[in-house]
Amino acid sequence: MLSLYTYFRSSAAFRVRIALEWKGLAYRSIPVHLLRDGGTQHTPEYAARNPQRLIPALDVDGRTVTQSLAILEYLEETHPQPPLLPPDALGRARVRALCAAIACDIHPLNNLRVLRYLSSTLGIDEPQRDAWYRHWIETGFDAIERLLQRDRPTGPYCHGETPTLADCCLIPQVFNANRYRIPLDSYPTIGAIHDTCLRLEAFQRAAPQAQPDAE
Amino acid sequence: MLSLYTYFRSSAAFRVRIALEWKGLAYRSIPVHLLRDGGTQHTPEYAARNPQRLIPALDVDGRTVTQSLAILEYLEETHPQPPLLPPDALGRARVRALCAAIACDIHPLNNLRVLRYLSSTLGIDEPQRDAWYRHWIETGFDAIERLLQRDRPTGPYCHGETPTLADCCLIPQVFNANRYRIPLDSYPTIGAIHDTCLRLEAFQRAAPQAQPDAE
Repeated sequence: MLSLYTYFRSSAAFRVRIALEWKGLAYRSIPVHLLRDGGTQHTPEYAARNPQRLIPALDVDGRTVTQSLAILEYLEETHPQPPLLPPDALGRARVRALCAAIACDIHPLNNLRVLRYLSSTLGIDEPQRDAWYRHWIETGFDAIERLLQRDRPTGPYCHGETPTLADCCLIPQVFNANRYRIPLDSYPTIGAIHDTCLRLEAFQRAAPQAQPDAE
Repeated sequence: MLSLYTYFRSSAAFRVRIALEWKGLAYRSIPVHLLRDGGTQHTPEYAARNPQRLIPALDVDGRTVTQSLAILEYLEETHPQPPLLPPDALGRARVRALCAAIACDIHPLNNLRVLRYLSSTLGIDEPQRDAWYRHWIETGFDAIERLLQRDRPTGPYCHGETPTLADCCLIPQVFNANRYRIPLDSYPTIGAIHDTCLRLEAFQRAAPQAQPDAE
């Protein structure tokens, strides 16, 4: 039995939800509200499960797997069909590099705890904080758009004719960009892949607004 | 033939150098100086190779693999012996989660481009910037130390009796902590693993001071 500790708006949890849905895996959602009561990820109960006090965490028969990238790889290894990684090593490396360009180089900089540090500890005002948010998305998307335009394996999805882990990471990041009203006109390939993915039921069912804890 | 675009002090490049050395793979070092002339990773030549303009990149017979985590997985897949991932799926997930706790949740926040943004764009002074640097290492190490102390698979290394990708990520992060003189007394397990790793020639040969471009 799989249980996912999730928050509807967490883009890291969204990545994992896409993979679970794409692979047709039944799972139970356990919402962890990141804002209520100073963040319920800080409760002793959740911190004992995941000392990083971050979302998501996947419970697999009582054992906890943390970190979205590790969870994605775990799901791919234990439920290889339908695949979310291409068959060749260089293709897999390309998909994983796209994942990391988002999951290492964009998302952690715009995470809630970082935005809070900027405001509370460094006294950064809201316009500057929003500019920070935009800056890291645009820096990341500039590079990703170039890679997608340049590389032959790019198809209707980031890599080929079916979704991969790269799409699991990209679509939630586009949601974040839209939430901050960041214009995506300069990223036509990212935009087209986003539209293609959202035609799939797996992506629709994984989306923030489809979650039981959506507000 | 493998060529690594590297900078002696880049902890992301250091991760890959450890894996290359541990697996006994011959490679050519191509130094990319991240500070000289405003950063030689921004030259058109390097940006064409890696549009993210980040280090490291691995050239494999003329094809480029970027992102340290993707390169580590690629090396593990194409050169599985000696392994840097454990044999069981939950063990691999644990190792990858430790990697991500460093490569997603500590290192990108303390990257050169981020420190520059804090200083130049946000006008953060040096003591505040150093406090930022320390904060993310301490937040990350607090959680990692707890995980390592708690989990049975922790051995002389992060996971068991031999190094894994988690050690490839942890040791460079300890180097960064030492460079900023962050006391590690609260992290006895991390400290012990660090000492164990540095007794191995692979880690010694991969270290910043052993690189051809060391200053």
